[in-house]
Amino acid sequence: MCKIKIIVLRYGHRPSRDKRVSTHLALVARAFGAHEAWFDTKDESLERRIAQVNEAFGGSFAVKTGVDLMSAIKEAKKEGFCVVHLTMYGIPLPQLIEEIRGKSKLLVLVGGPKVPRYFYEVADYNVSITNQPHSEVAALAVFLDWLYEGDEFNFKFEGGRIEIEPCVRGKKIRVLR
Amino acid sequence: MCKIKIIVLRYGHRPSRDKRVSTHLALVARAFGAHEAWFDTKDESLERRIAQVNEAFGGSFAVKTGVDLMSAIKEAKKEGFCVVHLTMYGIPLPQLIEEIRGKSKLLVLVGGPKVPRYFYEVADYNVSITNQPHSEVAALAVFLDWLYEGDEFNFKFEGGRIEIEPCVRGKKIRVLR
Repeated sequence: MCKIKIIVLRYGHRPSRDKRVSTHLALVARAFGAHEAWFDTKDESLERRIAQVNEAFGGSFAVKTGVDLMSAIKEAKKEGFCVVHLTMYGIPLPQLIEEIRGKSKLLVLVGGPKVPRYFYEVADYNVSITNQPHSEVAALAVFLDWLYEGDEFNFKFEGGRIEIEPCVRGKKIRVLR
Repeated sequence: MCKIKIIVLRYGHRPSRDKRVSTHLALVARAFGAHEAWFDTKDESLERRIAQVNEAFGGSFAVKTGVDLMSAIKEAKKEGFCVVHLTMYGIPLPQLIEEIRGKSKLLVLVGGPKVPRYFYEVADYNVSITNQPHSEVAALAVFLDWLYEGDEFNFKFEGGRIEIEPCVRGKKIRVLR
């Protein structure tokens, strides 16, 4: 499906307050071609929700929660991951995307207003999806859409139970098994 | 800033449960070049949050809450708005984007799993941003990014108090007044 290995790493997940935003973030990571999403706080209910989506719609996207982010980042750097931090303070995506497309492994840090200073320092690229405040969910989607040049519309997720059949009006769901 | 007049219309906003997702949605609409976002349920706190962003970062993006969506859609259709409904069940964006770019006024309906059947019927285009489940916030961002062909990175928001200066590492905020 995609040549680049991509792990999304979400800082500051609070299971009670962030339930919907974190679910959206994980689902965006999955739909737009990341392979894994890691969250700092343990959250079995988030893991279950994503497992249910895989079971229904296919693919092997993985969610890990309760991850020690600092160690994970260090480990990934050792393994040759390029670290991209999405932040409204960074350099606009159009100036960096060509360089980033040349990498084979990406660790994409997604935070929010309160990310530690360390994220800015450890990142190989601090990338802004416009310099306006908006949403980490949107930033991740636009980043991955640009990275894959729209190829997410062609992705296949194998092994699911159902599949949406695009239609002009209404809903068509194909049952596969 | 943009030739097409765009209003985003959000169905099913619940102020307590959806606070963050609806704020993200409004901020994405603003940052990616929509002119207004309308929500069905009255929510003064959401209106205030967006007004604060305008005050700080500029522009004249407008939020209306407590809007009767059905009447608003009918009125907009009379005024010549083309109605685009973002839904995972629709026709993939790449097949429709050229046609949609030719319109002068767009009403973009954003719902969720429980939108009324009426949305599918009233829409001139039911558009999917992939046929995988993910996030209405991401769907709106990718839709507007494609519509403007990435021009959101060049948008200027006039009259703000501060402005982000893109930088390689850390945060630079320029105070304008």
